[in-house]
Amino acid sequence: MQVVRTISELRALRGAAAPLVGLVPTMGALHDGHLSLVRRAREECETVIGSLFVNPTQFGPNEDFSRYPRDEERDLGLFERDGTDIVFAPSVDEMYGGTPATTVTLGGIAERLEGAKRPGHFDGVATVVTKLFNIVQPDRAYFGQKDAQQLRVIRTFVRDLDIPVEVVGCPTVREPDGLALSSRNVYLDDDHRAQALSLSRGLDRATAALEDGVRDAETLRRLVLDEIEAQPLAEIDYVSLADSGSLEEFEGDVTGEVVLSMAVRFGATRLIDNVTLTS
Amino acid sequence: MQVVRTISELRALRGAAAPLVGLVPTMGALHDGHLSLVRRAREECETVIGSLFVNPTQFGPNEDFSRYPRDEERDLGLFERDGTDIVFAPSVDEMYGGTPATTVTLGGIAERLEGAKRPGHFDGVATVVTKLFNIVQPDRAYFGQKDAQQLRVIRTFVRDLDIPVEVVGCPTVREPDGLALSSRNVYLDDDHRAQALSLSRGLDRATAALEDGVRDAETLRRLVLDEIEAQPLAEIDYVSLADSGSLEEFEGDVTGEVVLSMAVRFGATRLIDNVTLTS
Repeated sequence: MQVVRTISELRALRGAAAPLVGLVPTMGALHDGHLSLVRRAREECETVIGSLFVNPTQFGPNEDFSRYPRDEERDLGLFERDGTDIVFAPSVDEMYGGTPATTVTLGGIAERLEGAKRPGHFDGVATVVTKLFNIVQPDRAYFGQKDAQQLRVIRTFVRDLDIPVEVVGCPTVREPDGLALSSRNVYLDDDHRAQALSLSRGLDRATAALEDGVRDAETLRRLVLDEIEAQPLAEIDYVSLADSGSLEEFEGDVTGEVVLSMAVRFGATRLIDNVTLTS
Repeated sequence: MQVVRTISELRALRGAAAPLVGLVPTMGALHDGHLSLVRRAREECETVIGSLFVNPTQFGPNEDFSRYPRDEERDLGLFERDGTDIVFAPSVDEMYGGTPATTVTLGGIAERLEGAKRPGHFDGVATVVTKLFNIVQPDRAYFGQKDAQQLRVIRTFVRDLDIPVEVVGCPTVREPDGLALSSRNVYLDDDHRAQALSLSRGLDRATAALEDGVRDAETLRRLVLDEIEAQPLAEIDYVSLADSGSLEEFEGDVTGEVVLSMAVRFGATRLIDNVTLTS
């Protein structure tokens, strides 16, 4: 496995790499969710490139950029273990040196839910992913469905800008008790950790209700809210039941493919989770 | 020469094209300025691709999108005459079908001069050129220096987004009497045409003064303004003397590489011109 720090080194290696080339973009703090993407890329591609970059432009001023967990040595070991060929680990200066003036911005889908709660977040994501795609020029890029809205935002700008990359969404990986894997789970103390299970329990309850024929959006959202509101340390940012394509909230009966998603804070730690359902 | 209308056809041809691949993006209404780009690409590249697309998103609501001159048959003949291999001539629906949500936006350099007078113009340019670059994936792309600010905007987002395309700027082509070639020159009646020569005369006077040692920015701008203000049909949008890199206006003495540029309306026709000087 080769670790490169500069765009020019990455491009030189990329130019000589055998196709298909698969990219797994990460902010490090790797867990089995990320590694499931690496393994999927390893199965499907001749060359697997991982990236390791905590992107400052997708964090808000009061968010956890500075304390975001970083352990490069561990991350590189995990990338290598699961068969990564090249890791691109640039500095902030390498990625944003000079005075960048350009942003990839999205309306619509990027303005709801996470976009409403974290202004500028998806512009930061879209811009850095566009840069990574232009630097690495992968044939395929792998992202987790845990970040459901991010995946839709990426598919949207890839389509709108005609970027020649196939975006592959991979299932959320969970702990045995249901908690979705997240780099931010390390922040949780024991009480938070126990109460955080209400997110996946809520998703499970709503999924079961939908399977039993419940169609009313507010009733389904209420099942999730009841689970989470029963946790004294949980502060809900949102619980959403939205159209899978547009992420517009349902009123009345749900139809077609829907995304049930939420963001909940436990102390300073903000967790998200979601499930895609077909009604 | 092959003419293709769809992104998928273009990609199929591009995949089989010999490198280097040169792209000459145009809105049609070709004149010798455009064709100088085609000939330059023909000299430097194995495969020359021209594009022909009047991009609606770079026109303001009160601008000349609907009446912009269109004569595809003539344009295709000229592309072919000067050695173009492939012309990409998509419909608006092919380029912007569905409901696109994504824009490539620039601050700074894109907000001054043309950007101030034509809000949204450079977002439209940056977005469509990004799309063309992603569709064609050229090694080099050729643009005229007549659109001085556009060239800087394109260099800026190509750098900021790490787009792997070499941007080549080519000299403005002029009529024997000095008028810069422009697709919009066809709108000019005889009086406008005669008075429009004040733009290049103004540039010449300021160039000569700078060569004679005049350094004061306001004095140099005044020389240009005097030429143009002497034309009864001319309405000046701006006359600018700015730093070549940032396009920030000079106050006091100019230093380094500077761009002298202007936009002037004659009736409904808006002309631009510029020269880059080293003080």
